[in-house]
Amino acid sequence: MTSPLIKFDPNLDLVLERDVDVPVDLVWKAWTTPEHLREWFAPKPWSIASCELDLRPGGMLHFVMRSPDGQEFPNQLCYLDIKPQERLIMTDALLAGFRPSASPFFTAVLDLKKNGTGTRYKATAIHGDEDARKKHEEMGFQDGWGTVLTQLVEYIQAGRVPS
Amino acid sequence: MTSPLIKFDPNLDLVLERDVDVPVDLVWKAWTTPEHLREWFAPKPWSIASCELDLRPGGMLHFVMRSPDGQEFPNQLCYLDIKPQERLIMTDALLAGFRPSASPFFTAVLDLKKNGTGTRYKATAIHGDEDARKKHEEMGFQDGWGTVLTQLVEYIQAGRVPS
Repeated sequence: MTSPLIKFDPNLDLVLERDVDVPVDLVWKAWTTPEHLREWFAPKPWSIASCELDLRPGGMLHFVMRSPDGQEFPNQLCYLDIKPQERLIMTDALLAGFRPSASPFFTAVLDLKKNGTGTRYKATAIHGDEDARKKHEEMGFQDGWGTVLTQLVEYIQAGRVPS
Repeated sequence: MTSPLIKFDPNLDLVLERDVDVPVDLVWKAWTTPEHLREWFAPKPWSIASCELDLRPGGMLHFVMRSPDGQEFPNQLCYLDIKPQERLIMTDALLAGFRPSASPFFTAVLDLKKNGTGTRYKATAIHGDEDARKKHEEMGFQDGWGTVLTQLVEYIQAGRVPS
């Protein structure tokens, strides 16, 4: 299959890129297995109350974020493209089976590349307009996505993801 | 790659299904080549003023519909899934590179199946809610999509799509 078209626009999009010292196969596993995802995917002291996923195009990643005071925030992303250990594309513009959603906000692109024994990790958030990009910045994109990446690395380094 | 998840909901979605007496490879070609698409894709006396496409996931189908009195209506759909001669999935919920669009309305699924020397043709419109489905019905989904399918068949039968 032809590679998907991705068009990064610095005015509309946000990116977090970092070299991390954990192998790419474990990063992939931690991203695509619900029991792993729920352990690192919320920036502490937030947590993931529940997590389910159906890893195929049109399938959904459902997760519920829980705030420190117990409020729950459901989230859902539709998988668009899945290339094991290399690329994962998800959007909240679509529901299961590519059904248009009521509140589109962003598409997430995860790019992974083997880098020695580690991983070049790149997460991009693609927005429809500048307001959405600004809102995502104000919600703490860099801190939030950076913190969960640190948590992911620590989770893998603690031996929690068996190879 | 795993087959995509498609979830038809009779309350939200619309479908046009017909056996047509033209071969599946020519139907595919007529759907994926701009110079063919513009000849049959608008129900006459409407026409296609221009048509461009980038046939890969995240690529766009852009086309401008022209009314009999010369008004032009641009349309754009993002390709999600492309399986030659079998399946084409497109949505207006996304722009190029899977960027969320401002006005999501529907996702289109085209399913083709070889049926003797002809084709089992199925086109499904997937909507986010009942209002969108009703609006699409009122816009004349069955007549419109049925008319352009008839035009497609006549166009192929006239020998306009070389194999």
